[in-house]
Amino acid sequence: MTPCPLCGPVPSEIVLWRDAQCRVIDVGDSAYPGYCRAIWREHVREMSDLAPEQRDRLMRVVYAVEESLRALLQPEKINLATFGNQVPHLHWHIIPRFRDDPHFPDAIWAVRRRPNVDREFRRDALRRELERRLGPSV
Amino acid sequence: MTPCPLCGPVPSEIVLWRDAQCRVIDVGDSAYPGYCRAIWREHVREMSDLAPEQRDRLMRVVYAVEESLRALLQPEKINLATFGNQVPHLHWHIIPRFRDDPHFPDAIWAVRRRPNVDREFRRDALRRELERRLGPSV
Repeated sequence: MTPCPLCGPVPSEIVLWRDAQCRVIDVGDSAYPGYCRAIWREHVREMSDLAPEQRDRLMRVVYAVEESLRALLQPEKINLATFGNQVPHLHWHIIPRFRDDPHFPDAIWAVRRRPNVDREFRRDALRRELERRLGPSV
Repeated sequence: MTPCPLCGPVPSEIVLWRDAQCRVIDVGDSAYPGYCRAIWREHVREMSDLAPEQRDRLMRVVYAVEESLRALLQPEKINLATFGNQVPHLHWHIIPRFRDDPHFPDAIWAVRRRPNVDREFRRDALRRELERRLGPSV
């Protein structure tokens, strides 16, 4: 068995916010500045494997990332997804989408349509937005 | 302006469950039997455009679909996603995934890897599971 890559620690510079139950990281995808993942701490497979209050907790974090990205980047759309087909450890993709991004209007997992566009994204600004909505990162 | 395809009525045979706020439909994708969409009634763009109690309501419906599909089909994974890049009217994709499905382990929007597999899916059974979890469809 390969150890689960989402169970271990991640470099602190990519952590945007965390508490005892989940963490938000900067995916660091050069095609999608601002693309984040919200990862549940425990190795759990599906949303419906969480207790209802845990589901709500995780989604409140996902919505805070969505709201923060909207405030900072004014994207055309926010895309939210949880798959876990390759890594069955519950995590959400939160992706700001723009009309000129490499796959718009398709999903980012579809065939690329165009080259990357440079777009400013500042981790420190996103960290501040997340702390404002969720309280201190611990 | 093209009218929004998710604002209008849908054929009643594909409706699996509904209430005043949202409806669940059978997508009818022959590659993905059991693939459902949960569609918010109102023409709203993002999850964060809903009030917190509306977000929770929609997600409770999404989780009920997830749980029902797990109970009926025992998929390898459930995939959940909301994009709205093409139709910016809030809707969730709920997709049961199997190791031999056309795109596994990739997202279903990626390049196809293999042909469809026949898999039994009964709308009436899913309707019963949804009513058991969510109450009567109205």
